[in-house]
Amino acid sequence: MAKGLTKKEENYSQWYNEIVIKADLAENSAVRGCMVIKPYGYSIWEKMQSVLDKMFKDTGHVNAYFPLFIPKSFFSKEASHVEGFAKECAVVTHYRLKNGKNGGIEVDETAKLEEELIVRPTSETIIWNTYKNWINSYRDLPLLINQWANVVRWEMRTRLFLRTAEFLWQEGHTAHATREEAIAETEQMINVYAKFAEEYLGLPVHIGTKSPNERFAGAEETYCIEALMQDGKALQAGTSHFLAQNFAKAFDVKFLNKENKEEYVWATSWGVSTRLMGALVMAHSDNNGLVLPPKLAPIQVVIVPIYKSEEEFKLVSERAEKLCNDLREHNISVKFDNRDSQRPGYKFAEWELKGVPVRLAIGPKDYENSTWEVARRDTLEKSIVSNDEILQHIKNLLDDIQKNIYKKALDFRTDNTYKVDDWDEFKRILEISPGFIEAHWDGTPETEELIKNETKATIRFIPTNPELEDGKCIYSGKPSKFRVIFAKSY
Amino acid sequence: MAKGLTKKEENYSQWYNEIVIKADLAENSAVRGCMVIKPYGYSIWEKMQSVLDKMFKDTGHVNAYFPLFIPKSFFSKEASHVEGFAKECAVVTHYRLKNGKNGGIEVDETAKLEEELIVRPTSETIIWNTYKNWINSYRDLPLLINQWANVVRWEMRTRLFLRTAEFLWQEGHTAHATREEAIAETEQMINVYAKFAEEYLGLPVHIGTKSPNERFAGAEETYCIEALMQDGKALQAGTSHFLAQNFAKAFDVKFLNKENKEEYVWATSWGVSTRLMGALVMAHSDNNGLVLPPKLAPIQVVIVPIYKSEEEFKLVSERAEKLCNDLREHNISVKFDNRDSQRPGYKFAEWELKGVPVRLAIGPKDYENSTWEVARRDTLEKSIVSNDEILQHIKNLLDDIQKNIYKKALDFRTDNTYKVDDWDEFKRILEISPGFIEAHWDGTPETEELIKNETKATIRFIPTNPELEDGKCIYSGKPSKFRVIFAKSY
Repeated sequence: MAKGLTKKEENYSQWYNEIVIKADLAENSAVRGCMVIKPYGYSIWEKMQSVLDKMFKDTGHVNAYFPLFIPKSFFSKEASHVEGFAKECAVVTHYRLKNGKNGGIEVDETAKLEEELIVRPTSETIIWNTYKNWINSYRDLPLLINQWANVVRWEMRTRLFLRTAEFLWQEGHTAHATREEAIAETEQMINVYAKFAEEYLGLPVHIGTKSPNERFAGAEETYCIEALMQDGKALQAGTSHFLAQNFAKAFDVKFLNKENKEEYVWATSWGVSTRLMGALVMAHSDNNGLVLPPKLAPIQVVIVPIYKSEEEFKLVSERAEKLCNDLREHNISVKFDNRDSQRPGYKFAEWELKGVPVRLAIGPKDYENSTWEVARRDTLEKSIVSNDEILQHIKNLLDDIQKNIYKKALDFRTDNTYKVDDWDEFKRILEISPGFIEAHWDGTPETEELIKNETKATIRFIPTNPELEDGKCIYSGKPSKFRVIFAKSY
Repeated sequence: MAKGLTKKEENYSQWYNEIVIKADLAENSAVRGCMVIKPYGYSIWEKMQSVLDKMFKDTGHVNAYFPLFIPKSFFSKEASHVEGFAKECAVVTHYRLKNGKNGGIEVDETAKLEEELIVRPTSETIIWNTYKNWINSYRDLPLLINQWANVVRWEMRTRLFLRTAEFLWQEGHTAHATREEAIAETEQMINVYAKFAEEYLGLPVHIGTKSPNERFAGAEETYCIEALMQDGKALQAGTSHFLAQNFAKAFDVKFLNKENKEEYVWATSWGVSTRLMGALVMAHSDNNGLVLPPKLAPIQVVIVPIYKSEEEFKLVSERAEKLCNDLREHNISVKFDNRDSQRPGYKFAEWELKGVPVRLAIGPKDYENSTWEVARRDTLEKSIVSNDEILQHIKNLLDDIQKNIYKKALDFRTDNTYKVDDWDEFKRILEISPGFIEAHWDGTPETEELIKNETKATIRFIPTNPELEDGKCIYSGKPSKFRVIFAKSY
């Protein structure tokens, strides 16, 4: 299966696409820019959802569901929000089809909507319009609500998982009585995302805030987690926005505070999406295919039987099925690949391509010696383990793989982070060996724009607690008090 | 809270709407026909999803995700399918907005789609277009896939949960090598739905097939589960369709069978939706509000403290919190309603309205006597239970309530099922005391249509194994071999 996989050193972008498709994660659909998430890919997304959902509930949030459609006029209410999203909106204009002249069907022009409906690109407007009726007094606050949903942003250039016209995500929308409480929520949720990325995805991330150019349309502050991919480009893996009173003012959402005075409500919103699937693929995979962190792998262990005769198959199967039961009792997911239609070598390559963390093989020799051949996906190392120790060995190995892929990604990030004070070096690094660049910036959107135009790099994040030092802007030479982090990005 | 709830005997329809809204299940949104599912309502839906998802996986299905949009031309490919859905489709025609003249925003006419996109009303077409690439040989079959998704059907008259323009559902789409296997799958899934309805919703259902008039657009046979609501109207709670080779032919999906011959693939599809929430409300609720089956109640037990002083509050809280811990250890969800802002009477009414199966109260007297006041939601009966026995008592009570509400609904259905052989009686029953009517039918769509026009009743289902008897059609008098079941319906 891995035969024919493009090497990532040769064509990183193609290598990525091939893994997504050949590992059965997703594929392009008949609808431009929309993907089909295939069962194997979806089962990873389900694992992500289940972990995140628990983290949200543990921090006091509940789920709800708001309409897919948003009346067009809602978008005009928050000025910067419409600026940010208007150019990529799918618009519903009619609600009926009819039989056409040439046997096909056509849009029924008599069924035109009075006001067009936008397929939600994000739900702040429809949700704050709803919150208006839910919030009267400080007793109704905080409102801590999350939604799992599909959203549509009509991107011109799409890539599976990373940038698709339709994607799946969760969007938290909370309402608070004070500025401080809303900021605390914004920070809490970016920390939840960082914890999820590091402990489950095995992905080291930086937490920071966005420069005004990169901020969410309608936010006063956007917090983000940023990760470095193996090609040295950054990927924004999650954002949490402090929306101040912008949406409360746009939708007239006020509450009576404890002093019985009317005030506008404070808001946050935060989201992660199926983009995380793209991050997962790019962060750990190698030239044999996907490498999954054990905590998110739908299949953690695969067992491949080696046999020539029916009798040999029976012997090794018996031991394999016993181990399957033991593993399942310890909540380890396992697949016994007893397909007769494929040879072991084919199966090895297939499960490697699909990123299964641990592969076991058992043949007649192993049966006699009471041993297993164990291969770990992250390092491709093999070892022989006795049947008595196999269960404990697998448990340790899964932990070890989870830690090791994190460490590998962290080492990569460390090796590809540069402190740069010279403009030519800045440009040279971005060309030859891109990564995170810590550099001084004069704090103006104009300078960021000029840097972007020359190098394609943008400010990925501003450290939340930057180390203070006197410096000069890498581009303009104007004074600066701390470094920000630049990179090319997805 | 229940004060002011309309009595179901006075205005059933208003009673239903008020429960949905006042129990915080859902409300209408700013978008015509689209609802907001509120956190309490959504948490019940999440419980349904989790049980159903496990049932699907236990029967070998996996989840995936297909695009929200369907190219218009796909709909023309299966003739009866387009007939069934074309009149209620939301159509996306543009992909961009722009700033308008008067400060608002308008659709950018230069961003018109070449081919319009339909917001999925159901996904057979996009999925079978995808399956074409997934299926080559009998080895690729069966394909057992389910999708959790939102769908849109532009209904003219909408009602919360029962009929909304957008709703949430799951849709299974399976592909098989033989007719027999596909029929077995269709039947398996209607049985899964029946089991879910009876064991979890506490809702007795009949399994049957639909007459041609009521069949799914594109199916050769539609199986359904039908339940009787408290106003004597039937509600279709789930359907499973045997699609034969209709979609395989429309999308040219063939496979090589074991004899190396090309054949069209056999298909099924099956779904249940947030309509089940409406069924849940209508089946068990009373004039005090919602009555939830314990197995789907987000809160199974609520504890209300009774106190006058801070000291009394401390005493009863201590015991309440101990019980909360004990209950949670036994996987019983419990809420200790220690709000200081509301009086016990208000809380009692609120939790009654929200359908919490078991309510406990504890005051200083109960504390002294080591007792609890226990109220069960289904019968509203109260009893005093000693602290030593309370845990076991609650466990038994939850089981008992689950059984009792099922029995109550079953008795209601039995009492409201009529065997009728006379046309005047048929009409009279439907007017005075509607329910399920078992009557003879001549088997023609024309007769069913005429009966519908005169009485609004349709054939809800044809029994899968009808008792054979010679009879005459209730309407035409023509000969008939078995009875079918008529009712007015939602």
